Amino acid sequence: MPRSDGSGPVTERELGVALLGLGNVGAGVVKLIAENAEAIAGRVGARLAVRAIAVRAAAKKRLVEVDPALLTSDLNATIDRDDVDIVVELIGGTTEAKKAILRAIDRGKHVVTANKAVLAEHGREIFAAAAAKGVDVYYEAAVCGGVPVIRVLREGLASDRIEELHGIVNGTSNYILSTMTAAGTPFAEVLREAQALGYAEADPALDVGGGDAAHKLAILAMLCFGTHVDVSKVFTEGIDKLDPVDFANAARFGYVVKPLVIGKDHGPERGIELRVHPALVPARWLLADVTGAKNALYVTSYALGPSMYYGAGAGMLPTAMAVVSDMIEIARNDWAAGAGARLRQRHPPLADKPLLPMSEIRTKYYLRFAVADRPGVLGQLTTVLGAHGVSIAQVVQDTAPTARGATAVAGAPVAEVFVVTHEAREGDVQAALAEIAKLAFAVAPARLIRIAG
Amino acid sequence: MPRSDGSGPVTERELGVALLGLGNVGAGVVKLIAENAEAIAGRVGARLAVRAIAVRAAAKKRLVEVDPALLTSDLNATIDRDDVDIVVELIGGTTEAKKAILRAIDRGKHVVTANKAVLAEHGREIFAAAAAKGVDVYYEAAVCGGVPVIRVLREGLASDRIEELHGIVNGTSNYILSTMTAAGTPFAEVLREAQALGYAEADPALDVGGGDAAHKLAILAMLCFGTHVDVSKVFTEGIDKLDPVDFANAARFGYVVKPLVIGKDHGPERGIELRVHPALVPARWLLADVTGAKNALYVTSYALGPSMYYGAGAGMLPTAMAVVSDMIEIARNDWAAGAGARLRQRHPPLADKPLLPMSEIRTKYYLRFAVADRPGVLGQLTTVLGAHGVSIAQVVQDTAPTARGATAVAGAPVAEVFVVTHEAREGDVQAALAEIAKLAFAVAPARLIRIAG
Repeated sequence: MPRSDGSGPVTERELGVALLGLGNVGAGVVKLIAENAEAIAGRVGARLAVRAIAVRAAAKKRLVEVDPALLTSDLNATIDRDDVDIVVELIGGTTEAKKAILRAIDRGKHVVTANKAVLAEHGREIFAAAAAKGVDVYYEAAVCGGVPVIRVLREGLASDRIEELHGIVNGTSNYILSTMTAAGTPFAEVLREAQALGYAEADPALDVGGGDAAHKLAILAMLCFGTHVDVSKVFTEGIDKLDPVDFANAARFGYVVKPLVIGKDHGPERGIELRVHPALVPARWLLADVTGAKNALYVTSYALGPSMYYGAGAGMLPTAMAVVSDMIEIARNDWAAGAGARLRQRHPPLADKPLLPMSEIRTKYYLRFAVADRPGVLGQLTTVLGAHGVSIAQVVQDTAPTARGATAVAGAPVAEVFVVTHEAREGDVQAALAEIAKLAFAVAPARLIRIAG
Repeated sequence: MPRSDGSGPVTERELGVALLGLGNVGAGVVKLIAENAEAIAGRVGARLAVRAIAVRAAAKKRLVEVDPALLTSDLNATIDRDDVDIVVELIGGTTEAKKAILRAIDRGKHVVTANKAVLAEHGREIFAAAAAKGVDVYYEAAVCGGVPVIRVLREGLASDRIEELHGIVNGTSNYILSTMTAAGTPFAEVLREAQALGYAEADPALDVGGGDAAHKLAILAMLCFGTHVDVSKVFTEGIDKLDPVDFANAARFGYVVKPLVIGKDHGPERGIELRVHPALVPARWLLADVTGAKNALYVTSYALGPSMYYGAGAGMLPTAMAVVSDMIEIARNDWAAGAGARLRQRHPPLADKPLLPMSEIRTKYYLRFAVADRPGVLGQLTTVLGAHGVSIAQVVQDTAPTARGATAVAGAPVAEVFVVTHEAREGDVQAALAEIAKLAFAVAPARLIRIAG
């Protein structure tokens, strides 16, 4: 076998697996384990044997054929089984999933999960419990689906120091913004199309609102910066306020609009910068070329410099592949443990590093103003910005189309002014915009999109 | 510590390290170990302690400060030391390096190497020796430098099946072709510039000739397809015959010229397809955007689909980072072994899968002909191609500039004909070109560049 880590001849050693949930990912896991049983056995010298699958509604139509004898509605009994070594949590959500994960840990089972929400909100407690009990909790599938970014960050870059992360970690958002970029269509229309094609959920709020991405960023921050994260305090802005004119002007200025998560380590005193929002990404960045529903994580680390990891962030088989790869890793570690060693993935206690307040972040900004097209207005605008320490790199003024809802002020036509600033402090920019909003020439609230890089 | 796999409190456990060679990468390793000593100790519950550094010329000016007491010219004594657990081979080349690696294995030491040549040529023997002795041989730094592709392929995609690989694995070649693309300058001039800037060696043959890339492809094939590879049989074509006109026409047809390695699994009977050559890559592929000296591996696997891993493929710190990350992994495994388990990276015996003969590969082709500009010539050209089963997707004809050395035939001006074919069999294309070369209107040998994807 190409990448076997097993002990040689295949023994009859089996690792018992319990699946909690049999939705999309669960079906993929069953399928992959069945298809690759021999290869996996050769790889780790053990067979992965599915003992039971806990489901809510036993008679529901399933995506994959399973032996009905495996199905049960008794979640706790499934977790508690003596012949189960690995519990795969695919329930989703935070309440029931957290209970199930903690129960599994308490019963001495290893856990594999794809659940970003439960890790973002309860990661500290879950990892502490696992460390105390000496079991593994693996979560490769929770961030960037099948792309093994967790392994890369934890083991591939084990001797490096992560300085910055820029990620496209929500495929729905990336699909929508890529389509808006290519077609110039408004958000609502692209969302409807995405839903029809299965790229967006019927209730898309967690995806387009940025909540899903914030969960993933919190997990990345725990891993890369060694800190607990209160995900409710992570600045999160969705993609639903973007207008096609912003895409056109982004291109004009040499940028592409992408749904980003950004993480930076500013050291022990200033702390960690974490934010989720659409951003203008320089067109020459490789990240700008990540389109459709694909995910990518662009990492800046001390020794390696910039590196990027790209692929399908969701989907039945990609996500299932990450889950089964984690199971193989556990099987490999467990075999060593069976021989007396305690080779466990350690979950060291997370620090409580300060979160850099949003007002303190420094970045470049794209600003769109709707103003009365009168002499002196542009000067006033730039004066107010300048008074707040915000200096301008590029300016473009266009006549505003009435379609964008800007109405004339005192008979003067409306102009749109597009500004790209130099690096500025968020608090200063927001203060400048607040002041501008009160001025007579301001026709509509300014739009702001942060610029990455 | 964010990604600690250690046993908790830092003990006084030390792993002794011997470095063989103190060039660029060796200096980077010393630097990283020193800088990150605490972090590493926390991560694995053990300190990496450099016991000795074997060098050729003791008085040579070094890139990093080392305790002179560590330096020795006695390679074998260094390997044999009782207090050495890990031997890092940074000698390079194949003869001395192979002996040193086998000696280390024989003495029960784990090995970390960045040496693609020795693994490509002697990998089977080295891995078999390591398996028999129960020691680890790690080689993350051998392919794509600091980008952890070996870990990704072996562990991240452990539950997947690799179907195809497309890689840019030689930074010198990528730098040269990226510059030729951007500037339209001829190869020889760009090579000189690359040498002046340190992107190419004084003797660039291994890089621009494709030999270095072939070594890396052989290693990838061993890992992904589980087969021994006779690297001398891998079709390898360098980048030195490319002309600026090919870059311009590639762009015209929607392609970018890249220095590729390609690997495909055609199943047990047809075998493995492996080749190294410049290729036209569709401009919409993410791989086409990998520029400068960066490397990238574009993997197509059954469950994940396409994924890509990108970053610095060479350089002191990136390469050293991969070496030290391997050392951390060994320390982690070794700790388990110390407790009685034998958790070793297994090196399963490699199969002897057939190598698909180059004549049997099927791909699309870019062809450039210099022909007498006479009526009927284009028709004859396409007829001969068609007679060999090669059908044409696109054709462009231009008047040939005399600068490219095409001389008139019987007073008729010379034309250049550029063809993009549909998928065709290499043997058929070569036969067609051989026939065309004998025809009266052929002014110069045809140029052929294979098209990827």
